[in-house]
Amino acid sequence: MPSSPGALVVDLKFDRREIESALQGAFPGRQVLQASDKSQDLSRADYLVAWKPDPDLFDRAPNLKVLFSGGAGVDHLLAMPDLPEIPIVRFVDESLTTRMSEWVVLQCLSHLRQVPAYLAQQRDHLWRELSQPEAKDVTVGIMGLGVLGRDSAVKLKMMGFNVLGWSRTKKELEEIETFAGHELGTFLSRTDLLVGLLPLTPDTRGIFDRSLLARLRRDGALGGPIFINAGRGGSQNEADLLASLEEGTLRGASLDVFGTEPLPPESRFWSLENVLITPHAASASDARALFRHVRSQISRFEQGQPLEHVVDRTSGY
Amino acid sequence: MPSSPGALVVDLKFDRREIESALQGAFPGRQVLQASDKSQDLSRADYLVAWKPDPDLFDRAPNLKVLFSGGAGVDHLLAMPDLPEIPIVRFVDESLTTRMSEWVVLQCLSHLRQVPAYLAQQRDHLWRELSQPEAKDVTVGIMGLGVLGRDSAVKLKMMGFNVLGWSRTKKELEEIETFAGHELGTFLSRTDLLVGLLPLTPDTRGIFDRSLLARLRRDGALGGPIFINAGRGGSQNEADLLASLEEGTLRGASLDVFGTEPLPPESRFWSLENVLITPHAASASDARALFRHVRSQISRFEQGQPLEHVVDRTSGY
Repeated sequence: MPSSPGALVVDLKFDRREIESALQGAFPGRQVLQASDKSQDLSRADYLVAWKPDPDLFDRAPNLKVLFSGGAGVDHLLAMPDLPEIPIVRFVDESLTTRMSEWVVLQCLSHLRQVPAYLAQQRDHLWRELSQPEAKDVTVGIMGLGVLGRDSAVKLKMMGFNVLGWSRTKKELEEIETFAGHELGTFLSRTDLLVGLLPLTPDTRGIFDRSLLARLRRDGALGGPIFINAGRGGSQNEADLLASLEEGTLRGASLDVFGTEPLPPESRFWSLENVLITPHAASASDARALFRHVRSQISRFEQGQPLEHVVDRTSGY
Repeated sequence: MPSSPGALVVDLKFDRREIESALQGAFPGRQVLQASDKSQDLSRADYLVAWKPDPDLFDRAPNLKVLFSGGAGVDHLLAMPDLPEIPIVRFVDESLTTRMSEWVVLQCLSHLRQVPAYLAQQRDHLWRELSQPEAKDVTVGIMGLGVLGRDSAVKLKMMGFNVLGWSRTKKELEEIETFAGHELGTFLSRTDLLVGLLPLTPDTRGIFDRSLLARLRRDGALGGPIFINAGRGGSQNEADLLASLEEGTLRGASLDVFGTEPLPPESRFWSLENVLITPHAASASDARALFRHVRSQISRFEQGQPLEHVVDRTSGY
C-alpha cells in the first residue's frame, strides 16, 4: 500500500487571495499546509514553497526534503538562519522570463528613444524632434547570463542593439559576445546601456558602485551611459548611484529594485530627471505558474529523477 | 561617346546642414542641383529627390524621368498639381524600417506595462505594483502591411504579443494571421492595441474615426483598447480621437503624427492622461541612407533594369 504523498507547506508573502485562488486544484491528493496558520503541525511536511519565509519556519518543519523558492532569486532563503542542508530549487518559468524581457526591452528602448526628454517636452507642449541614434549604434551590456539574461540578450539583439554579456564564469551564447569575471573592464568600456540581472550573493552585494559605473563608455551615441537594474537592490550602492546620476557620470537609469522596498517617499530617486522607477514589478511570479513548476519538480523527485534548477550554495545562485 | 550622366535635383525640406553633409561624395560624376537656389536651371535634369517640394518645381524641371520620395510616404507628392506621369519611387531602407519598429515595439510595451500609470505613481512617490497581463494575453492589430508593418509584426510577435495584420488587399505573412479589407470588423473585434501604419490615400483619410475605434475589443486584458499611430495624421479623425479618449472608448494612445504639424501648443492632446506624444519622430529618414538608395535606383534605371519600390498611383502607395 503506497503511503500518502508528502505534505507541502506554503509560506509565500504574496497577495493572499491570489495564492488561495491558485492553490485550488493545484496539488490533487496532496496535503497543503499554510505556514501563516500557527496552529498547523508542519513537523511531518516534506516540501516547502517559500518567499521570505517566517524566521521560525525551519523549527516548525524540521523534516523537509526539498525547498522551493517562490521567485527567481534565492537570496531571501540563503540569508535565513538554520537553513537545512536540503536541495533548494529556483523558480524558472517561461512567463517569469518573458515578463522580465518585456521590461528590459522596454527600458532599453525608452532610453534609446529618449522617452524622458520627450515626456518633458510633452509636459511643456513642445514639438521638437531630437537627434536620434538607432539601436545598432548603441551597445547593451548585460551582467548576469542566467535564463533571464539570456532571453533578454536574444530579444535586444533582435531589436537591433549590439549586445554583450558578462557573467562570473564564462558563458557561451550564440551570436552574442560574452565576457568572464576578470574581463569586466573591457565589457564595461564598450557598454552604453548596462543591464543588471545579477543574483544577490556576497560577491555581487554593492557591485554597482561609483567605480564600476565610471568605467562605462562615455563617448557612445547616447551621450552618456545608462544603468538599468532588475536584479536585486542589494547589488547597487545607492549613495554612489545617486551621486553618479546627479553629477552626470550616468545619463539616466531604470530601477525596479532598491535596497529598501518599498522605496521611501522621501527618496531622491523619485524625482531625478532621466530615472524611470517601477515598484519591483519587472517580472512578477505568477502563482499558478509557480505551483505548476513545484508540482512538476515534486513529481520528478518522487519518481527518483533529478530535480532541475537546483541552487549551488557555494556560488549562491 | 557616352553622354554625361543626368542631373539630379534635390528639394528636401530637412535640416540643410544634414543634407549638405550627406551629399558630399554621394553622387560621383553627377551634377546635383539644389531646388532652393531659384537661379538654377533645372530644365534638363533627369531625376528629382523630394520631400514636400516647392509648388513651382515641375514648371522649372519639365524633363524629369524619375521622381524619388524623400520618405516612406508619397502623399506629399501625389497631392501636387502638375505631377508628371513618370515613375515615383518610395524610400525603402533598412534603417527607416528598424527605427519604425523600435518606436512601435516601444509604444506597445509602454501600454502593456502601464508606463503612463507608473509615471503618475512616480510623480506621487508612490510604490504600488499594478496587476499586469503579459504580452501573450494581449493582441496587437497592425493596419498596413508594407515593409514597415511587416517588420513591426515580426518583432512584436517575438516579444510575445499575439499579432494580427490588416491590409486593403490580403497579404500572406508567415505565422501571422492576416485580414483583407472587407474583414476589418473581425480584425478590430480581436484587437487590443491598434497600430496604424497606413499610407495616406483617399481611402485612408480619416479612417481612424469613432466608429472604427468603437469596434476594437473592449473586454481584453488591458481593460480597454489603445490606439498607436505612426502612419499619417490625415488618417485620424482627431475630434473623434479626442472624444474617444476623453469618454473612455479608448484607454490610451501613442501618437507620432497629427493633421497639423507641429501640433499646436493649445491642443488638448498634449495633456491627456494615457497619451504619449512624439513629434513625427518615430522613424526619421537618414539623408545618407536616402542618397544611397537613390544612387542605387538611378544605377538600375540607367542600366535598363526595372526600378524597385515604384508607387502604384491607383492605390496611392
